[in-house]
Amino acid sequence: MNSDQVASLETLKSKLDPKAWSVDPTELSAHTQDWRGRYQGQTPLLIKPASTAEVAEILTFCNDHQIAVLPQGGNTGLVGGSTPQGEIVISLRRMNAVRDLDIANESLCVEAGAILETVQQEAANANKLFPLSLGAQGSAMIGGLISTNAGGVHVLRYGMMRDLVLGLEAVLPDGTIISDLTGLRKNNTGYDLKQLLIGAEGTLGIVTAATLKLYTHPASLGVGIAAVPSPQGAVDLLDFMKSATGGAVAAFELMPKFGLDLVCDHVPGARLPLESDPDWSVLIEVTSGEADRASEILESALGEAFEKDLISDAVIAQSDSQAHEFWMLRESIPEGEKAHGKAAKHDVSVAVSKMPSFMHAASRMAESFDPDIKVIAFGHVGDGNVHFNLGAKQAGAGDEFIEKVKPVTRAIYDLVDEYGGSISAEHGIGILKQGEFAARQSTDIAIMRVIKAAIDPNNIMNPRVLLPQT
Amino acid sequence: MNSDQVASLETLKSKLDPKAWSVDPTELSAHTQDWRGRYQGQTPLLIKPASTAEVAEILTFCNDHQIAVLPQGGNTGLVGGSTPQGEIVISLRRMNAVRDLDIANESLCVEAGAILETVQQEAANANKLFPLSLGAQGSAMIGGLISTNAGGVHVLRYGMMRDLVLGLEAVLPDGTIISDLTGLRKNNTGYDLKQLLIGAEGTLGIVTAATLKLYTHPASLGVGIAAVPSPQGAVDLLDFMKSATGGAVAAFELMPKFGLDLVCDHVPGARLPLESDPDWSVLIEVTSGEADRASEILESALGEAFEKDLISDAVIAQSDSQAHEFWMLRESIPEGEKAHGKAAKHDVSVAVSKMPSFMHAASRMAESFDPDIKVIAFGHVGDGNVHFNLGAKQAGAGDEFIEKVKPVTRAIYDLVDEYGGSISAEHGIGILKQGEFAARQSTDIAIMRVIKAAIDPNNIMNPRVLLPQT
Repeated sequence: MNSDQVASLETLKSKLDPKAWSVDPTELSAHTQDWRGRYQGQTPLLIKPASTAEVAEILTFCNDHQIAVLPQGGNTGLVGGSTPQGEIVISLRRMNAVRDLDIANESLCVEAGAILETVQQEAANANKLFPLSLGAQGSAMIGGLISTNAGGVHVLRYGMMRDLVLGLEAVLPDGTIISDLTGLRKNNTGYDLKQLLIGAEGTLGIVTAATLKLYTHPASLGVGIAAVPSPQGAVDLLDFMKSATGGAVAAFELMPKFGLDLVCDHVPGARLPLESDPDWSVLIEVTSGEADRASEILESALGEAFEKDLISDAVIAQSDSQAHEFWMLRESIPEGEKAHGKAAKHDVSVAVSKMPSFMHAASRMAESFDPDIKVIAFGHVGDGNVHFNLGAKQAGAGDEFIEKVKPVTRAIYDLVDEYGGSISAEHGIGILKQGEFAARQSTDIAIMRVIKAAIDPNNIMNPRVLLPQT
Repeated sequence: MNSDQVASLETLKSKLDPKAWSVDPTELSAHTQDWRGRYQGQTPLLIKPASTAEVAEILTFCNDHQIAVLPQGGNTGLVGGSTPQGEIVISLRRMNAVRDLDIANESLCVEAGAILETVQQEAANANKLFPLSLGAQGSAMIGGLISTNAGGVHVLRYGMMRDLVLGLEAVLPDGTIISDLTGLRKNNTGYDLKQLLIGAEGTLGIVTAATLKLYTHPASLGVGIAAVPSPQGAVDLLDFMKSATGGAVAAFELMPKFGLDLVCDHVPGARLPLESDPDWSVLIEVTSGEADRASEILESALGEAFEKDLISDAVIAQSDSQAHEFWMLRESIPEGEKAHGKAAKHDVSVAVSKMPSFMHAASRMAESFDPDIKVIAFGHVGDGNVHFNLGAKQAGAGDEFIEKVKPVTRAIYDLVDEYGGSISAEHGIGILKQGEFAARQSTDIAIMRVIKAAIDPNNIMNPRVLLPQT
């Protein structure tokens, strides 16, 4: 930072409410590394605006003085997109108000700093459902979830964050405020500007508030676990279950034996509900508009699936707490994996129909590269997104293991390309995947650069993130 | 057109397959006026590409020579967006292939010229559902439906066209082809470029193909008509029905007595199924994952609604053909309206919760402007989109009536603004609404212009449409 920029920051501080900024190293430290401690950065200034007008004032100033900014929500991202390297940090955490709840419109307007769990609770208090659900929901903030187009376990039924936003308020780099918070479900007046901001990882502007889509709770949920012969068997079962339940499948998650073994080894209280110990199982959730029906629908459909040899074993949760236990098994796989040792992780997607063939090819390739590699592939097979991770057979693998298997990562992404898939299904590009992204998407990146230059000509918005450096 | 441009067109023709262009006046005439005959235009050249590569070659040439182009699908738009005024017309009708059906991925890849009804049929043949459904489905083409982000009667359950597109292939003005047809349901690798093209009314590029989302058919549908005391009563009933059916309401359409009377007067075979003759009624469709359950669920919920005085009368279709009759009543309102005389039409939306108050204020305003005006407001109240039309009390109104009530149109749009609504919920801006759009959305339009200039710097793509002329 040169002396002009230092002087500029002093000017900026002098314009702001003293509560709206900090240079206290202790306070800054929570904002300069990611939650898992993988990325370490630094910033000369943390700004904590309390209003959209303040965000606009800050961005106008930064744009005029060409000061790079990094917007930050709950700082729970997985790809290094919210760790500063010299940029000033704009944390949205003070902007966490619930602005409006509209039950008849099934919409909730909240500020960007609202925590996902709070939003879920606000919806539940109104007897409605906000369906986004993911591991970091106790810290992740709505602005960040929008800027990264978060996914999770219910995408199959309710879509990604992109599908759950009725409208946004955002500040563009030049201080322009765009606002579309009135909760319209249909609006065909020109380009859908909100869609540009969603998933842009803070490179086009700062989301300050959003009107979110709420849903009516299904009257009942049925949750079960079934043993399938293979990933292809899982896809066949999904196809069958969709028809057999009249489209009522709300979640369909693949779980491998090794992943569940790690959960049982490392997570207190975890136990497998199936009598058999299958190589592959799936967690299935179905919904019904009628009370106490979903479990019966699930049971009947799984009965038919058993008759057709699609599954060899199944169990249906008999209570809400058992359903929660089943879900905890699935949700605990990353924890079990972590306790076992380091793993090279790949959040990839292909078309659902191609998932089995992709997994087979990728597993063979990885295991033939190094017989010490153990593939742990699990997750949202219902929407073609599997977390394809490479662990070590033996417990206790460290960074040297990650280093050793690096060539496999590139080969996996090459295979994803061959299968027409995505190298980042739900986590985004951030810093972590820029190189791989650049190597694979030259046409799209060129167009993204044109858009970025048009909206952010001074390149002040999260400039190191998403789009590869030139 | 100056002599350079005439020479350019000759060069362009010489580069193309002779089957790929026409200057035959008879052939051109189908492309130079809209289907309702409201817009009349002209073009020096009709181009009918047969492949994406051909579209790219054409756009590259036109961009290099600054020749304006107008992309055209089924030419069924309602706002004048596809009538040329000197631009060359690029019709996608020869590109109508089904490229791929992937049942396990629930996706269908078709070219832009595929007719909506054909797409629905392709899905049905695979025992799947493509849920977009609207009056013009026998002629409307997928490319146009994407470029106008079409809506229809099932938005409440399945969303707009924007929500039904998994990926696009499109040609940008400089001939760049972007392609994302692999049917991914999750992909977080940068800006979602397809969302920019969807609803852009052909101003940013030409959609050449799309991979569409299919759904599993619900196992049963229940369709009924219920008498409500008022639009507020309709919204109250919607809220109740959502809870009572566990979120199973798939369509919820408001119908006024005057509109249904016109249907009965003018549409052969139409008759009202309710014994009472209420001022307001709603058509409700609910779905169930179980066979033969939806009608019972609907009946039980409407029974409760009756007990709670939310409705005064109701009838449930006892067969598929009766359900079809009910739907035909709703779908025939525009036809009845047309037979009655000309009407000034307003395709507007507000938040669902605000619809009753908006309708009340707008009706009072219109009827006090001229006691001869009869408001006919009907449609998708479940998603806040009502077709708020002004007819004459007496039959036979002509253009002079439309002229007379013009000031009311502006006042209605002002009221829509006050209510935070949209002046075009599903039909788009085109030519028809440019003035009103320009008067109301200066910030958004400025940003749209920046994007347009970045993607289409020579302004060759449908240059008179959507964005107001400067």
